[in-house]
Amino acid sequence: MDKEQLIINHFNNKFLGDDAAVLGKMVYAKDLFFEDVHFKREWLSLEQIGYKAMIVNFSDIIVMNATPKYALLGLALPKSITNEQITGLYGGIKKACDKYGVSIIGGDTICSDKICISVSVFGVLNAKAVFRKGLKNGDFIAYTGKLGSSLKSLKSLINIGKTSHKSRFFDPILRDRFFYKSAKFINSAMDISDGLTQDLAKLCASAKKGFKFIKKPIKYELESGEEYEILFSFSPKNRAKIEQIAKKTRTKITIFAKATKGRYKTNARSHHF
Amino acid sequence: MDKEQLIINHFNNKFLGDDAAVLGKMVYAKDLFFEDVHFKREWLSLEQIGYKAMIVNFSDIIVMNATPKYALLGLALPKSITNEQITGLYGGIKKACDKYGVSIIGGDTICSDKICISVSVFGVLNAKAVFRKGLKNGDFIAYTGKLGSSLKSLKSLINIGKTSHKSRFFDPILRDRFFYKSAKFINSAMDISDGLTQDLAKLCASAKKGFKFIKKPIKYELESGEEYEILFSFSPKNRAKIEQIAKKTRTKITIFAKATKGRYKTNARSHHF
Repeated sequence: MDKEQLIINHFNNKFLGDDAAVLGKMVYAKDLFFEDVHFKREWLSLEQIGYKAMIVNFSDIIVMNATPKYALLGLALPKSITNEQITGLYGGIKKACDKYGVSIIGGDTICSDKICISVSVFGVLNAKAVFRKGLKNGDFIAYTGKLGSSLKSLKSLINIGKTSHKSRFFDPILRDRFFYKSAKFINSAMDISDGLTQDLAKLCASAKKGFKFIKKPIKYELESGEEYEILFSFSPKNRAKIEQIAKKTRTKITIFAKATKGRYKTNARSHHF
Repeated sequence: MDKEQLIINHFNNKFLGDDAAVLGKMVYAKDLFFEDVHFKREWLSLEQIGYKAMIVNFSDIIVMNATPKYALLGLALPKSITNEQITGLYGGIKKACDKYGVSIIGGDTICSDKICISVSVFGVLNAKAVFRKGLKNGDFIAYTGKLGSSLKSLKSLINIGKTSHKSRFFDPILRDRFFYKSAKFINSAMDISDGLTQDLAKLCASAKKGFKFIKKPIKYELESGEEYEILFSFSPKNRAKIEQIAKKTRTKITIFAKATKGRYKTNARSHHF
């Protein structure tokens, strides 16, 4: 058995299987952001590392239709880190927290050989939570923004050691304005962190649905992860409302598939193990 | 400036400075448990690692006078980990969660070169929270249980690679029964994770108080960390009540100091950086 699946099977309970866990009006998410797993030191400044570690967690809260409020921060930092670097890291974390109105309420700091950041974020539901399992037969499946640039940046970083500093890889744009306004017309959602192919498979698996492409995305769009755009679905009768909100919030959306009965199984392997 | 202090100064806000953060009736704590920082693989089985990673977090919630309820779990595990080891790790985590009635509601799993466990625990206050800063001038300062065995085990592990499997180093005993019953008579508390010398200094610093020894603990008692016994203080007028509850719950307590006006400063360095 796939090791990640074994772990998921062991811990399986009613709270799991979504971007975040819902308990009453509160929503809880946790993501790890580790050197040499999620980033290399030569790719990102300490400020960019701090910023992205927070943003990827806020993303999980937002796609549940909740507003991130509080965070616990676990920092494992090398002994060699300088005071200037600590201040840079803090600057990135603060920038993200200020932008989204989040307070750091606790955490733990240890010395480690690599930078390992562990963030837990708690948010408050704006209204009804949006779950992955809400995907309905006949739903349009869409994503926000553009996909592909993050993978291009990653390839460029691996091959030539640099990429544009404006890349989404450094600075994902979260679609909170669009999502909060349109949430009541949305049946299911998740953020695209592992790439459309893998995340679409997860969405379908959660709801025990299949899909057919209306317009098949190109390879870069299918495989690019870490843009933190939103994958979401809605009933065809709400299409006009969704498109109107997208226009109003200047959010590009691409309707690319339709949910069907049956199951969808991908052969794409998780990168985690 | 000490790096850990720089980090604390940057992130300082009203929520920080205690074992856990209190928000309304909820209490939030986070601790990291990393290979080669907190443990070596050859010292603990995967089950012991999982158990201890959870227990040290429950301890932070208990000393606030709250009951741990939910946890988020971040697991970074080596690719080489076997399914049997995953099941062992899960067994230890489950044993701790079952013992304290905690549900894992979410988390993140990644592949890393070392075992890094990050746990966030949320609890519900039983009654009024007990803070470190509650230490009052004239308070008796005491600790639960016995101190010293964890340091002995650690030295034995470092020197001869083994120690008794009954050691507190593997299986800290939490004093929830004693603490919950006596909390209303207690002015301040924290768990002893870094050793009495360091943790007493933190307690005094939080309350801007000093102390004088009534009965100075021996070196092993002062320096041994990770037993997760409770350091606490109370008004002399509550001594009889505290001693009665200790007797009833079969909890050894040692009154060893008295809080005084003024400041206490230790030269003991944090092991974190």
